[in-house]
Order: sequence, then structure tokens, then C-alpha cells
Amino acid sequence: MAGTTKEIAAEVGLSQPAIYHYVGSKSDLLREIALQVDRDLFAALESGIARSTNPAEQLRGIIEEYTAAVVRDRRVFAVFWQEGHSLPQEIQDRIREDQRDFITRVGKIVARLQRSKVLPPGPVAVMARAILSMPSWMYHWYLPEGQMTATEIADVYCRLIGLGERR
Amino acid sequence: MAGTTKEIAAEVGLSQPAIYHYVGSKSDLLREIALQVDRDLFAALESGIARSTNPAEQLRGIIEEYTAAVVRDRRVFAVFWQEGHSLPQEIQDRIREDQRDFITRVGKIVARLQRSKVLPPGPVAVMARAILSMPSWMYHWYLPEGQMTATEIADVYCRLIGLGERR
Repeated sequence: MAGTTKEIAAEVGLSQPAIYHYVGSKSDLLREIALQVDRDLFAALESGIARSTNPAEQLRGIIEEYTAAVVRDRRVFAVFWQEGHSLPQEIQDRIREDQRDFITRVGKIVARLQRSKVLPPGPVAVMARAILSMPSWMYHWYLPEGQMTATEIADVYCRLIGLGERR
Repeated sequence: MAGTTKEIAAEVGLSQPAIYHYVGSKSDLLREIALQVDRDLFAALESGIARSTNPAEQLRGIIEEYTAAVVRDRRVFAVFWQEGHSLPQEIQDRIREDQRDFITRVGKIVARLQRSKVLPPGPVAVMARAILSMPSWMYHWYLPEGQMTATEIADVYCRLIGLGERR
């Protein structure tokens, strides 16, 4: 695993007291980061779905909320995706199961959108992963000093997959 | 940086002689991995563009070639995206410049497709990054023992962004 606990804690923007709390326990810190990512993913899913009963609006909601989470907790996501393989096995298993659940639930919305011809036919799990790749990958390139907000970037993702104008 | 040189070399599938060659020089090994990624990106770009003068076929070509490269050199890409920040600064700068160039060139094709209404309006660099996110992110989820080929998965990406049927 790269870096000291202190470096990682500083990288994800923890406060000094939190850094002291974690110093000496890298695995506790990584566990905390993983649980934050897990919470972010599910909060994005739940609030996206809660926006509407219309699946196109739900998918737009998930993309917007997830993009906002990656932008807001960018460093947490970066450490998670880079260091996730160093997590204790039981946490890795839990996160992997949660991610599968996330893909399954987004896949159900994708399937509804395929039936109404908003999305093209194709395997729903791959399509769900392809859509979520766009916000996931942002930690590699998004700069907070850039000129676009998370909502504007999410709108590009939505238009690219034919979700139409924002309501 | 995570792992010993030997572990990383084994992870990316280097042969025993190559591992011996690099043992003791992590930064040489990482440099080799970075240059492989760089070559893969440009080979995908060049052969995608060379397929046609039609920008939709060119973009499909780039997506197919890049997806095939990520699937083929999955472990090389994974180490690169996870360890890239440990590269010597001059290599990081060079790779970053090459990636910007890659985005710029894909962006030009995106702009042509926007003019012909194949792609929706929006900032071309963000749209190029969004499209390339789909193959880039695959190293997190693609399993070679899965049932879909790289070409079939790339076809899902293309249809998702409205590129139409494969010719």
C-alpha cells in the first residue's frame, strides 16, 4: 500500500484530530474510506431513484448524484480505487457485493428504458457499468478549478446516452 | 508504491527473464508499463482513425481498438492507473501531454459528429473523456472468463452513444 497513514489521511482531507485517531492503523483508515465510498454510492442510488417514478428521470438522478459525490469526495474515491486491493478481505467482499447490488439496481432501470426504446438493446449489466463508468472515471481527470459544475458535467453524460433535456 | 518490483512484474505478466531484468529498479519497470499504455493508446487512435473517413466509423474504430487493448493488457493498464503517480515526474508529464493530445484528437471527431447531429451538443473535451471512460474503467470489472468478447462490449458502448449498427 502506497504512502503512510498520515499521508493518506491528509490526501483524503481528514482533519488533524481524525488523522491522529487513525495514525498507526492504516487498515482502519482504509476501512473508513471504503465505507464512505459505499455510503456515497447508496446515497446516490437512493436519492436518484426517489426523484421520480419515471425511469429516465431516475437514471438522470443517479448520474447527477453520483457525479456530485465523486466531485465532492474526489480524493476519497481516488484512494479507494487505488488502494481497495489492500483492504481486509471481509471488507473487500462486502464492498464487492454492494457494488454488484448497485449494478443490479441500475440494470433494472436500464431494462425499463430499453423496453420504452430510450436506451438501445444489449446486456443490461454491461450497459449499467458503461453508464456508471463516466462518473467513476472522473477522479482521473476532474479538476475542481475547472469551469464546469458537477451538474453540468452530469448533463453531458445524460445527453450522450440520449436521456434528453433536463427538466 | 505498492508491492515489490517482482510482484508488479508478475502482476503484469512479464516473463522470468524480464522480471530479472527489472528487479531492483521499480522506476524502470513502471516506466516500461507507462510506455506500453502510451503505445496502446496511440495504436488504438491511429488504427481507429485509419479505418474510414467517416467520423462515426472512426469513433467506433477507436472505441473498439481501445477496448481490445484494455482487455488484452488489462493488468498493465491496472498497474498504470494505480501506480502512475509514482512515476518519475518527466514521464508523468510526457504521458499527461500524450493523453491530452489523445483527448484533443478524439474531440475533433466528436465535433464533426456534433455537426452532423450524430452526437448531441456539449463541450467536446468532456464528451471525449466521457466516451473514453467506458473502456478505461473496464480494468475494474472486466473478467476474461466472462462470456463477452472485447468487440461485443465495445458494440454496447457504441450503441449507448447512438453510433448505430456495426457495418
